[in-house]
Amino acid sequence: MHILILGGGGFLGKRLAKELLENEVFTSSEPIDITLVDIGFPPDMLQDARLECIQADLSDEAAMKDILQRPPEVIFHLAAIVSGEAEKNLDLGMKINFHASLQLLELCRKLAIHPRIVFASSCAVFGGDVSKVITDETGPKPRSSYGTQKAMVELLMNDYSRRGIVDARSLRLPTIAVRPGKPNAATSSFISSIIREPLHGKKASYPVPVETAFWIQSPKRIMQNFIHAANLDAALLGADRVINLPGLTVTVKEMIDMLAQITSSEVTKLISYEPDAFLQSIVLTWPAHFTTKRATTLGFVSDASVKEIIQAYIEEEGITYI
Amino acid sequence: MHILILGGGGFLGKRLAKELLENEVFTSSEPIDITLVDIGFPPDMLQDARLECIQADLSDEAAMKDILQRPPEVIFHLAAIVSGEAEKNLDLGMKINFHASLQLLELCRKLAIHPRIVFASSCAVFGGDVSKVITDETGPKPRSSYGTQKAMVELLMNDYSRRGIVDARSLRLPTIAVRPGKPNAATSSFISSIIREPLHGKKASYPVPVETAFWIQSPKRIMQNFIHAANLDAALLGADRVINLPGLTVTVKEMIDMLAQITSSEVTKLISYEPDAFLQSIVLTWPAHFTTKRATTLGFVSDASVKEIIQAYIEEEGITYI
Ligand SMILES: NC(=O)c1ccc[n+]([C@@H]2O[C@H](COP(=O)([O-])OP(=O)(O)OC[C@H]3O[C@@H](n4cnc5c(N)ncnc54)[C@H](O)[C@@H]3O)[C@@H](O)[C@H]2O)c1
Ligand SMILES: NC(=O)c1ccc[n+]([C@@H]2O[C@H](COP(=O)([O-])OP(=O)(O)OC[C@H]3O[C@@H](n4cnc5c(N)ncnc54)[C@H](O)[C@@H]3O)[C@@H](O)[C@H]2O)c1
Repeated sequence: MHILILGGGGFLGKRLAKELLENEVFTSSEPIDITLVDIGFPPDMLQDARLECIQADLSDEAAMKDILQRPPEVIFHLAAIVSGEAEKNLDLGMKINFHASLQLLELCRKLAIHPRIVFASSCAVFGGDVSKVITDETGPKPRSSYGTQKAMVELLMNDYSRRGIVDARSLRLPTIAVRPGKPNAATSSFISSIIREPLHGKKASYPVPVETAFWIQSPKRIMQNFIHAANLDAALLGADRVINLPGLTVTVKEMIDMLAQITSSEVTKLISYEPDAFLQSIVLTWPAHFTTKRATTLGFVSDASVKEIIQAYIEEEGITYI
Repeated sequence: MHILILGGGGFLGKRLAKELLENEVFTSSEPIDITLVDIGFPPDMLQDARLECIQADLSDEAAMKDILQRPPEVIFHLAAIVSGEAEKNLDLGMKINFHASLQLLELCRKLAIHPRIVFASSCAVFGGDVSKVITDETGPKPRSSYGTQKAMVELLMNDYSRRGIVDARSLRLPTIAVRPGKPNAATSSFISSIIREPLHGKKASYPVPVETAFWIQSPKRIMQNFIHAANLDAALLGADRVINLPGLTVTVKEMIDMLAQITSSEVTKLISYEPDAFLQSIVLTWPAHFTTKRATTLGFVSDASVKEIIQAYIEEEGITYI
């Protein structure tokens, strides 16, 4: 079973490859082999005989055509220009997040097989009145170019699935926390930073009022949901391939309070409020209240509590704190 | 005041030009002049000193750049590959309905002014469970490539408006009835045919069960709504530039019964049921029940009754029947 992970050098892509190799979690009983595609790979990429890393640009048609010569049964499409960058550079966001995704679908159209695609969309397709509860029927109203591009690709994924060209599943990911590593250009980066940085003895700040609520999910649950999506029977999905993943609603204050409770107020002293107009203009349009009946019925999972999320991060990273 | 009508040789474009020239209906007191762009114009195009017809393809970048040299204050973007054709030819639909629309926005990005755009979207962005009532919050779930392409352009229109590149208003048009002239490649074509053809002594058929309901609007109201959209203050619209127009819910049976009542059962004898699997696969996914609170609050109008719609058509066309 041949699996392709686009954006496989990124945070979620790397972790997904590791998970798949460790657990061989596919309903198909065939042995798996994985091809990761990314413009660059971190030096600590995992090594495995079943794993191949190809440095290529998703927008490079010839390179992608070449990669698809050996047609994958499953494609995880995680390559993206993140929200902050896509907002600052409309051309780049459109090129990678939109056009390269369309090109991928067009290349699949020429294949003899019709690969299953798990597309990493985002709850950033929603925007506007954040007090409203988002349901499975609510229309995307993005307030960022990133969200716009993700919403357009979801529409394409549905239409190309309807036409039998691919068999797609677009997952609208909640904000992921706690993301290990360094802060990045995602406008949601601080949501992880306020937990991660103080645990490493570093300062962190949040740019929005402390009462602001977010819709989050841990990397561990995201992995389970990616794999569940890839294994799901198309008949259960029907015509609509877009799924709002079940997250957890939590405020900045609740995260900080929980961190203090698990560690100490010495740790959370490192966190401060630093308002940022650019970040607020995007982040404050993200709704944090959802009912995700469809996802739950389909068997997608969520975290039990913020406590569990923070403790899992501490454990995974092997952090010891005073 | 310079007005551009893309798809100006089409049914709605031609009628809009006539309406604008006759009534000078803009809030701006400047005299108007209109440029129509289309790949072709009918021989009976109206002649007027204030009107210019340019034969050009919307997807021709050089031609469009040239046309935008004299920047328009208002663009009515009505050029499209209709639903039936876009379903049969994915490439052509994507090229004209999607890529050419994106290119238009990109060309506007290079202009010094930020034109108002009235984009003719469609209620065909909705699909699925047709028993549900569509509200202003309901997400598009197109079941056709045409609907998919329209929904993607709506997203672009919103994002490019948010960025201040254009000042767009995307109107989701109900099915238009009664459309004069000949049947066309729109999958909704029969909805007009069953009224129009018998009035001209010709046979007509409908491909769906007679109880099937539709969401319709007359050409006259569409004109009023196009012009209202172009005159609307951007501040009243806010971030969301997409509007579900207020139509009328009516079944095939109700249309035929009303035609018989206005004329005679001799006329409606010409109408028959001819099931068509292709048309059913698209048309039966269109919802017919809406609440359009936002549109009504914003001052958009609907028809009073099917009776009024049929009578207006008879009057406009100067039809006499036995
Ligand atoms: N992390 C989150 O909170 C979150 C939330 C919602 C959605 N998502 C989506 O999940 C996916 C993965 O996110 P992540 O957190 O791992 O981000 P990431 O930035 O770590 O990974 C994305 C990867 O895509 C690669 N990439 C970018 N442009 C490319 C190109 N032209 N060709 C090939 N590869 C390219 C990057 O190099 C990067 O390694 C993305 O699509 C993202 O939009 C993430
Ligand atoms: N009539 C309806 O029931 C209905 C319903 C919903 C939406 N709409 C939308 O309203 C708009 C106008 O509809 P209409 O009924 O007048 O259709 P129409 O087909 O009569 O007009 C569309 C015009 O666009 C032109 N066109 C097509 N490709 C072009 C290109 N590449 N460059 C330039 N011009 C091109 C066609 O030649 C045609 O004259 C369309 O965008 C349509 O999708 C119509």
